[in-house]
Amino acid sequence: MQKRILGLDPGLATLGFGAIVCSGEAAGSTEAQVSVLDYGVVQTPAGKEIGQRLIIIHDDLHTLMKQWQPDLVAIEKLFFYRMGNTIAVAQARGVVMLVLAQYNVSYVEFTPAQIKQALTGYGNADKHQVQIAVTRELNLDQIPKPDDAADGLAVALTAWFQN
Amino acid sequence: MQKRILGLDPGLATLGFGAIVCSGEAAGSTEAQVSVLDYGVVQTPAGKEIGQRLIIIHDDLHTLMKQWQPDLVAIEKLFFYRMGNTIAVAQARGVVMLVLAQYNVSYVEFTPAQIKQALTGYGNADKHQVQIAVTRELNLDQIPKPDDAADGLAVALTAWFQN
Repeated sequence: MQKRILGLDPGLATLGFGAIVCSGEAAGSTEAQVSVLDYGVVQTPAGKEIGQRLIIIHDDLHTLMKQWQPDLVAIEKLFFYRMGNTIAVAQARGVVMLVLAQYNVSYVEFTPAQIKQALTGYGNADKHQVQIAVTRELNLDQIPKPDDAADGLAVALTAWFQN
Repeated sequence: MQKRILGLDPGLATLGFGAIVCSGEAAGSTEAQVSVLDYGVVQTPAGKEIGQRLIIIHDDLHTLMKQWQPDLVAIEKLFFYRMGNTIAVAQARGVVMLVLAQYNVSYVEFTPAQIKQALTGYGNADKHQVQIAVTRELNLDQIPKPDDAADGLAVALTAWFQN
């Protein structure tokens, strides 16, 4: 049985996503297989009103959910690491959580450290090390761009590893 | 010409609202009239998942918007005054801003100090003084309950005063 996982790195200006499909086998087993379905970013223009930007996130995430019908969604957890930005990111995240609930899809959350640990074995790994791991795990020819899309794939893979 | 204003005090557990209708005259003029249409709270159970709580806010706010079709929405501004709570409130607020944008309604935001100043002439007024002013301005028999509903009416009145 196959399982589709949609990974999300929520933000107001840029929401990264990565969709993967994996075999039902545990990630470490010899039969385990995983491959990429899609990745990219939802971007909202800084010049638009917050409500209009949230509508873009709402509508594009609905489109992604309909297109990939994930069995599981994996989301990067929100921290207070950049104060000025946190309210904007949390507002965008509220819209993401609304859409997921509207689809009644299961979701799991991971901190950046958990994602780094899962992908590289090292919770303080840098961005490039994580991207190399994503590229290798998914047998891609090159590092997925932009960075937020790679982050979306990384959190999806973390959910698969923890399966 | 009459104008309907919906005041909102957004929160995740409790969203206070107050709908008023006012004459087109400036608030200070002798012909100026204002009266209450509705007030109350949208409450979401603490035991439910965040997504389910956001669906309640989304659906109830849609119902309020359809029912009262406000010409203007007035919202209390979010501050970082209670850190632990801020992400939850911001997520709820994101859903509120989404719904307002879906209705393409104009909105204005006021800080708590601006609301206190507009209602009582004093930016550091306490909650009770604001409630007394709301009750007097709207010719109510008693102070509107619960407190969050009175806050919804207060921010709606602030928008009217600033008209």
